Amino acid sequence: MEPNTSSIVFDQLLKRLTQAVDQSDVGNAMEVLREADVEETAKLVDRLSAEQRTALFEMLTPEQGAEVLEHVYYFQGADIIEELEPDAAAQIVTKLDSDDRADLLNELSDSDSEAILEELDKDLAEETRRFMAYDEGTAGALMYSEFVSFNANMTVEAILDDIQSKRKKYIEYGVQYAYVLGAHGTLKGVLPVRNLLFAKRDQTAADIMIPDPITVAADTKVLDLENLFEQHHFLGLPVVDSKQRLLGIVDREASTEALQESATEDLLKFQGLMGKEELRSMPLGVRSRRRLSWLSINIVLNLISASVIAFHQDTLEAVIALAVFLPIISDMSGCSGNQAVAVSMRELSLEMISPKEFGRVFIKESSVGIINGACLGLLIGAIAWAWKGNPVLGLVVGSALALNTTIAVCVGGLVPLLLKACKQDPALASGPILTTVTDMCGFLLVLGLASLALPYLV
Amino acid sequence: MEPNTSSIVFDQLLKRLTQAVDQSDVGNAMEVLREADVEETAKLVDRLSAEQRTALFEMLTPEQGAEVLEHVYYFQGADIIEELEPDAAAQIVTKLDSDDRADLLNELSDSDSEAILEELDKDLAEETRRFMAYDEGTAGALMYSEFVSFNANMTVEAILDDIQSKRKKYIEYGVQYAYVLGAHGTLKGVLPVRNLLFAKRDQTAADIMIPDPITVAADTKVLDLENLFEQHHFLGLPVVDSKQRLLGIVDREASTEALQESATEDLLKFQGLMGKEELRSMPLGVRSRRRLSWLSINIVLNLISASVIAFHQDTLEAVIALAVFLPIISDMSGCSGNQAVAVSMRELSLEMISPKEFGRVFIKESSVGIINGACLGLLIGAIAWAWKGNPVLGLVVGSALALNTTIAVCVGGLVPLLLKACKQDPALASGPILTTVTDMCGFLLVLGLASLALPYLV
Repeated sequence: MEPNTSSIVFDQLLKRLTQAVDQSDVGNAMEVLREADVEETAKLVDRLSAEQRTALFEMLTPEQGAEVLEHVYYFQGADIIEELEPDAAAQIVTKLDSDDRADLLNELSDSDSEAILEELDKDLAEETRRFMAYDEGTAGALMYSEFVSFNANMTVEAILDDIQSKRKKYIEYGVQYAYVLGAHGTLKGVLPVRNLLFAKRDQTAADIMIPDPITVAADTKVLDLENLFEQHHFLGLPVVDSKQRLLGIVDREASTEALQESATEDLLKFQGLMGKEELRSMPLGVRSRRRLSWLSINIVLNLISASVIAFHQDTLEAVIALAVFLPIISDMSGCSGNQAVAVSMRELSLEMISPKEFGRVFIKESSVGIINGACLGLLIGAIAWAWKGNPVLGLVVGSALALNTTIAVCVGGLVPLLLKACKQDPALASGPILTTVTDMCGFLLVLGLASLALPYLV
Repeated sequence: MEPNTSSIVFDQLLKRLTQAVDQSDVGNAMEVLREADVEETAKLVDRLSAEQRTALFEMLTPEQGAEVLEHVYYFQGADIIEELEPDAAAQIVTKLDSDDRADLLNELSDSDSEAILEELDKDLAEETRRFMAYDEGTAGALMYSEFVSFNANMTVEAILDDIQSKRKKYIEYGVQYAYVLGAHGTLKGVLPVRNLLFAKRDQTAADIMIPDPITVAADTKVLDLENLFEQHHFLGLPVVDSKQRLLGIVDREASTEALQESATEDLLKFQGLMGKEELRSMPLGVRSRRRLSWLSINIVLNLISASVIAFHQDTLEAVIALAVFLPIISDMSGCSGNQAVAVSMRELSLEMISPKEFGRVFIKESSVGIINGACLGLLIGAIAWAWKGNPVLGLVVGSALALNTTIAVCVGGLVPLLLKACKQDPALASGPILTTVTDMCGFLLVLGLASLALPYLV
């Protein structure tokens, strides 16, 4: 079986890497890291102890460090950089591509990233700060500045000389297109590098470029980028400012990857990890603290909704069977509501709905809520009746679940829109808000209806 | 504000499209659809009524129908095709690319896809069945068969003639590479189309191809494909069978998109939608039924865990304050457990952990569980003590939450591995299994400890 072979290979790589790090043998360490593929590299770095990891990056040259960093996941990279001294970190960070550099520093705490920025070359620090300022999920945050550009009136001869002198760099970037700039760095056209082969040496860049290329603004959103890539089959798009000055290039791969990352982040947030990736190799204190920060908000919300029960203890004491149904109603309404949250989050992310379409969502959800509430309410009502032989108990429990399901489904559908309209993150806050509202309503419905029907229940 | 402008434009497009459909005006309908960008097209198709949608696709030519289908989301496409007569559906499906065709038919029910397959041309039906059989998330399921291939001993002259005669098709596919085949369709090499320009007319394909290209098998998983694309900066990879026969081409874009879709599906499943996309434009019955199928499993599990409370009614009746804490303990343990589920699902999807590493997960999770359990248990214990002035009540409730959090975190961490090892889907089943186990344990701990300490509680 393949997993076994690959796990034996991995164990051997890990053993060799650990030995190399313990013996401070840079040559062997790099040999192992170059033998490993991308997934193996990430796992190798994950399985070193924190001390070994720091020792490894301290003994690598900045170039080697940057090479390894490019092969691990960005949240691993942030952890590694955080452990290094700012000047050592700055040397590695300098060797990264502009987009990776900004992403990595954005993952760090403000004080850590500031310490590293201060160690960077002044121009580089300024560019990096500019890149870091773009909002996540926009062209600005995804673009890189390592493009090749020529002045519009440069001759083919001069361009070819320039390419010749920077051959290595161009090959590394896999350059297919160069960008032609006018005065003040404004974008005039795109120059497919292969066109240079067929051009006369005294023509200018402006003569052989494709003029008026399609461009995007730095705040263009990922979904709009995907749209343009889909329509035009481009591999990259130039990003320009309001004065048409070229800021960078965003490529299709980066845009699709950003969509994937945002889907993953939504899942993590919804599961109660607040937007930070956790790996089990991270220090216990960090893992425990990050999880607690979310749980501590939740326990407060739980106490608020449970207080409804506390206020109705006498009813509950009189009809103790209700206690069996309280957690069922709380959990089932939560489930029904979460389904509606899921549909709203999905429609929002596909832009199939605007955050203002409350009416549409309310109509569409209330109808599902009434039907599913009726089904579940009948079921649980029948069970309660059969169990205690009391039809009124069945009626109380069943109608409470039916009503609360309808409420939960409507609230679940509307909360993500409301959060989005308030520029909040639906993935993070929808769950707790929904649970609190539906728990309170659910407890109130069961115990309130029961106290009304008390004579028939005891 | 941009959303307003775009929503006005959208409303106008929708009005024009609705009119065109109502008047059976194909020309105007296509004009609107061609004016709309990809997102707008998807939303337009979404906002038509079911009848209008079917009417639209019945009046379009198969080519036009296929063109529109390529611009909507795949789950919308499935809905549209399902509503058409099998022969009309087959005519549209025929015009799709091989990978889109197989994806779309896989979205349909078996009887629907079978009815359409029977209407297809025999060879096409056979190819489509072959494509449909590949597992989701593998190279086979992502590849397309619309590649350009030449026999190894074909001359450049003959190749150029062939290209000339099929010019339109080649431009449509945006062909950059052709594939050179030996006897029985085995892959011999890759031929960058531009190489043809510099070749002598009497050279053969074998003379100018890049021999022994990197290939993948049909069952290669997406993560391994991403790995290869990352390492080699390819845009596409040839997929071959065990005899090195060329089956299709998988490109980088398709592979990254597959990763994104699987992240999205995981989120939907975790939120209680069983792997099927729901849009609010779908018929009420379908939406209600799909959601109920998940809820009905959940309510059974809920009844099982609530039965623990039913068996301890006397304890609860004696200490009614406990009823306030039952839902808190159930919900908080669920939250803690879900965080561990999230970390395991993430580490599995990144292949940072193998499904067999139970020991590692148990050690790493139990330590977080003990710390977080202690924190939450102390908090809730102190609140219970303060509320009722009874330290034993605090001890019972606090230690129940502390113990149950530890259990929930360990179970949450391990369940996704166990499901993965049994080839089940962690996103779908982890939540309900976790909730049931932690609810039962939680109720048992609170009520069991309370019955032991009963003399000190009443």
